[in-house]
Amino acid sequence: MTEIVLPEDTNPAGTIFGGRVLALIDKCAAVAAMRHARSEVLTVSVDSVEFRSPVRLGNILLLHGWINAAFRSSMEIEVEVHAEDPTTGRRDLTTRAFVTMVAVGADGRPRAVPALLTQSEEERRRAQEAAGRRMARLEQRGAGGVS
Amino acid sequence: MTEIVLPEDTNPAGTIFGGRVLALIDKCAAVAAMRHARSEVLTVSVDSVEFRSPVRLGNILLLHGWINAAFRSSMEIEVEVHAEDPTTGRRDLTTRAFVTMVAVGADGRPRAVPALLTQSEEERRRAQEAAGRRMARLEQRGAGGVS
Amino acid sequence: MTEIVLPEDTNPAGTIFGGRVLALIDKCAAVAAMRHARSEVLTVSVDSVEFRSPVRLGNILLLHGWINAAFRSSMEIEVEVHAEDPTTGRRDLTTRAFVTMVAVGADGRPRAVPALLTQSEEERRRAQEAAGRRMARLEQRGAGGVS
Amino acid sequence: MTEIVLPEDTNPAGTIFGGRVLALIDKCAAVAAMRHARSEVLTVSVDSVEFRSPVRLGNILLLHGWINAAFRSSMEIEVEVHAEDPTTGRRDLTTRAFVTMVAVGADGRPRAVPALLTQSEEERRRAQEAAGRRMARLEQRGAGGVS
Amino acid sequence: MTEIVLPEDTNPAGTIFGGRVLALIDKCAAVAAMRHARSEVLTVSVDSVEFRSPVRLGNILLLHGWINAAFRSSMEIEVEVHAEDPTTGRRDLTTRAFVTMVAVGADGRPRAVPALLTQSEEERRRAQEAAGRRMARLEQRGAGGVS
Amino acid sequence: MTEIVLPEDTNPAGTIFGGRVLALIDKCAAVAAMRHARSEVLTVSVDSVEFRSPVRLGNILLLHGWINAAFRSSMEIEVEVHAEDPTTGRRDLTTRAFVTMVAVGADGRPRAVPALLTQSEEERRRAQEAAGRRMARLEQRGAGGVS
Repeated sequence: MTEIVLPEDTNPAGTIFGGRVLALIDKCAAVAAMRHARSEVLTVSVDSVEFRSPVRLGNILLLHGWINAAFRSSMEIEVEVHAEDPTTGRRDLTTRAFVTMVAVGADGRPRAVPALLTQSEEERRRAQEAAGRRMARLEQRGAGGVS
Repeated sequence: MTEIVLPEDTNPAGTIFGGRVLALIDKCAAVAAMRHARSEVLTVSVDSVEFRSPVRLGNILLLHGWINAAFRSSMEIEVEVHAEDPTTGRRDLTTRAFVTMVAVGADGRPRAVPALLTQSEEERRRAQEAAGRRMARLEQRGAGGVS
Repeated sequence: MTEIVLPEDTNPAGTIFGGRVLALIDKCAAVAAMRHARSEVLTVSVDSVEFRSPVRLGNILLLHGWINAAFRSSMEIEVEVHAEDPTTGRRDLTTRAFVTMVAVGADGRPRAVPALLTQSEEERRRAQEAAGRRMARLEQRGAGGVS
Repeated sequence: MTEIVLPEDTNPAGTIFGGRVLALIDKCAAVAAMRHARSEVLTVSVDSVEFRSPVRLGNILLLHGWINAAFRSSMEIEVEVHAEDPTTGRRDLTTRAFVTMVAVGADGRPRAVPALLTQSEEERRRAQEAAGRRMARLEQRGAGGVS
Repeated sequence: MTEIVLPEDTNPAGTIFGGRVLALIDKCAAVAAMRHARSEVLTVSVDSVEFRSPVRLGNILLLHGWINAAFRSSMEIEVEVHAEDPTTGRRDLTTRAFVTMVAVGADGRPRAVPALLTQSEEERRRAQEAAGRRMARLEQRGAGGVS
Repeated sequence: MTEIVLPEDTNPAGTIFGGRVLALIDKCAAVAAMRHARSEVLTVSVDSVEFRSPVRLGNILLLHGWINAAFRSSMEIEVEVHAEDPTTGRRDLTTRAFVTMVAVGADGRPRAVPALLTQSEEERRRAQEAAGRRMARLEQRGAGGVS
């Protein structure tokens, strides 16, 4: 997902409005989740969004999202946001976030998603860490969360 | 902060687009932070945003934000989002989030913020827990974060 | 209702676009009316909107609305808009407006609203003045208006 | 000024969001005022906006604005809004409003505007009625308004 | 169709964002086409859009569209965009475009449109040239286009 | 560039508003052009935009843009838009367009762009065809265009 930072995206300080980046992260995660689940999805949680460096007017924003783990009806998606200065080509990691989304059927209720095939060592590590974060989230919230 | 959920805020499933809520949370946190810091602020991180129940077209969204703790140049703001059904008056907690913002001067660099006066037991507990979360965030990120 | 004035809200002169304030006034009045009527509402008229001082980029806008009077199916809502300079905390009254809204049922036709309980002297005065303004509006329009 | 009513302009009831019409009225008045004053303008007041019939998704909105009277640095602009059903060609008067705008120089201060040449009987009547409304507004506000 | 160029319409260089003009051209063409066809319309193609001179913040945009030719279910609409500097009144032709739209019924399928009555020599020339452009477009696309 | 079609993007017929696609095409072309030119760019012309099949609410839009040819200070960019149905994964080519952009310096005047290195037979064919289209555009416009 690619965006140019226009004046309508900025805050009074001339850098991108943080809420604009959050909205793009949610959209990027939804695309990855819809493709895996082949259904509508709803956002369950957004976690650990860190803004490392301000993004300026005229920069190109690059969002990249992938599925870390698929549970019964929910998925953890990781999203990385880079800012690119078009006059130099330099890219900096701006933001990273973990988004959990749940697949829903036409009746609006959670529905099962396909298992995630992990092939490389890297993919297995990601799925394992995602499962750990999910545990932490469920504990924090007490019983009864979407899973 | 109050909003009516209009068609332009919804996703194809007819409930509010998650990214729209995230953008409102960021705005609400910024208002609380600007008032405490008496300066411009930038978003540093957003954490633990959970969406508990879908928000429907025509609902009223209520956002309430307050400072949990003020550190050197940064603040943790907690934001609660309730959805109100105007035909019944019923309100449900929809989302809760922890947002960290940093005060910046006219030169765009971090500047000190006033200490937060905690009076009640409740306020002291919040400040303490916020300090704990900040520690966890700084550890996760390694050295060198804004504080 | 609270808003931060962002670049997307401004006119070429760098102050807030008047139409943006009008749209916020309408939204604020709708929230107050929906809560009183417990139904959908439509705007019938907007009156006496005065802009006293320009609102600048980065200001916080505070909108406060309350029901002045409830008639058969319509209500007069008064809305006050203050602009707050976050760097000083200073607030100025920017705009005041009288909005009339009508409650509508699922069939889109006007439906009765609850009577307004006026307790203080102040509240009774407001209801009386609102009734006077309604008379003036009905006369201006000739017979046949929504009431 | 012409607009098509798109889903992004509607309220949950499926008709146009009142605030959207108000924003268009302000824009239409600004165009008429800028052309007469040959300068930037700011909205001073909006008056007597009445919504006569709901405007539906897919309708064409037609806004027409003209100068009723020019005072020292301010002007009264009248705006009429018609809704046209493109499938039948039928047009209904939806809204009418009186907007007062003040011309401002590059320094943001009021500046004189050219006199309005009234030629027909109709134009003289309009200018006279506008002067009457201006008196009423200045009285309501007490001394010290922009004129 | 008239628009004021606001900060939300501009690109980082301070002139109007090209995509914004394109969206207005499409809207302007749709209004002309809906009026001729008395039905919903869909955009089939946009051609030969040329931007002759940059449009600046605060300029007034004037869009004028007319039907060049009506075929079975499609129409060619020509749109001219002028930019007006409100401080001088000077108008420059900014953009010109040819848009083809098809009339669709409630079932979403193409439906016949009324013939275009051409009276003047000028109108006949336009219809003829439009027919020539349509031929060129159909050839480029191979068989099977909407006509 | 990837987008989800939300209610705010649709026309009254429930499919994507054509102007929205045009705005995305312009943005996508600008990203490709800025990366090649390493400078700001302005849109010079948009050509041959054909909409082959309607795009529905909830679809994913995929935009892909590349440089066909670089001239002195201008570039021709080709943009392809596919619509993906997330429930089936099926992708259809929706729109294709040729966009010409000119690189501008900080003074807003055209500046030279790097030559395009064409390696494959395919790339050479594209550059040649783009040069042909440029000739046709310059002829149509008479002398004096940006090149």
